[in-house]
Amino acid sequence: MTAGEKWSPSEKKVARTAYDAALKVALDKTLAELKSRAHVAATPSEIWDVEDFLRQQRRKIDQMFDYRYSQLIQVFANQGYLEESLLVGLSEDKRQTIRKYASWNREG
Amino acid sequence: MTAGEKWSPSEKKVARTAYDAALKVALDKTLAELKSRAHVAATPSEIWDVEDFLRQQRRKIDQMFDYRYSQLIQVFANQGYLEESLLVGLSEDKRQTIRKYASWNREG
Repeated sequence: MTAGEKWSPSEKKVARTAYDAALKVALDKTLAELKSRAHVAATPSEIWDVEDFLRQQRRKIDQMFDYRYSQLIQVFANQGYLEESLLVGLSEDKRQTIRKYASWNREG
Repeated sequence: MTAGEKWSPSEKKVARTAYDAALKVALDKTLAELKSRAHVAATPSEIWDVEDFLRQQRRKIDQMFDYRYSQLIQVFANQGYLEESLLVGLSEDKRQTIRKYASWNREG
């Protein structure tokens, strides 16, 4: 059995909070980047670059944030910006797996 | 023979200038609207509304601006914001057709 399979009620609560926080960070970063790109945009190609950027971000966020318990370990591992403290309350087993996957992602 | 079929060299020159001016107006409006929407955006749905807006504008501008002589009368008629003075130098026949189509567009 892998680390992602069993989630206790208290782990589910921790997971929900961490998931929402990670999603908020991803959306806030997208919003900040949108504002900054739109602010400096001056040419037609810079207009359409904003569209391309938003389409990629939407696809990336849609793919990345998948709240199925079978996917959560991978979701958390993918968040470069997820604070470790948000994962307190998950089993040590799960947190180690998340750290391991996260370091693979960084190296990859 | 319809008004759009024959373009003299001097009409082609006028048409090029008017076309470029109309395209610039369309792009400037899109850029201004992008900046304004991005500036006030605060929620995820407002982020993706900007993407939808840009996609629609890109499609609209791509469809509308077609520099074939067979299409130019319609292109000019579609520009609500095209200054009449830019069309000075086109035959009276063409300008009347543009006005007629433009008024149909406004009514439609």
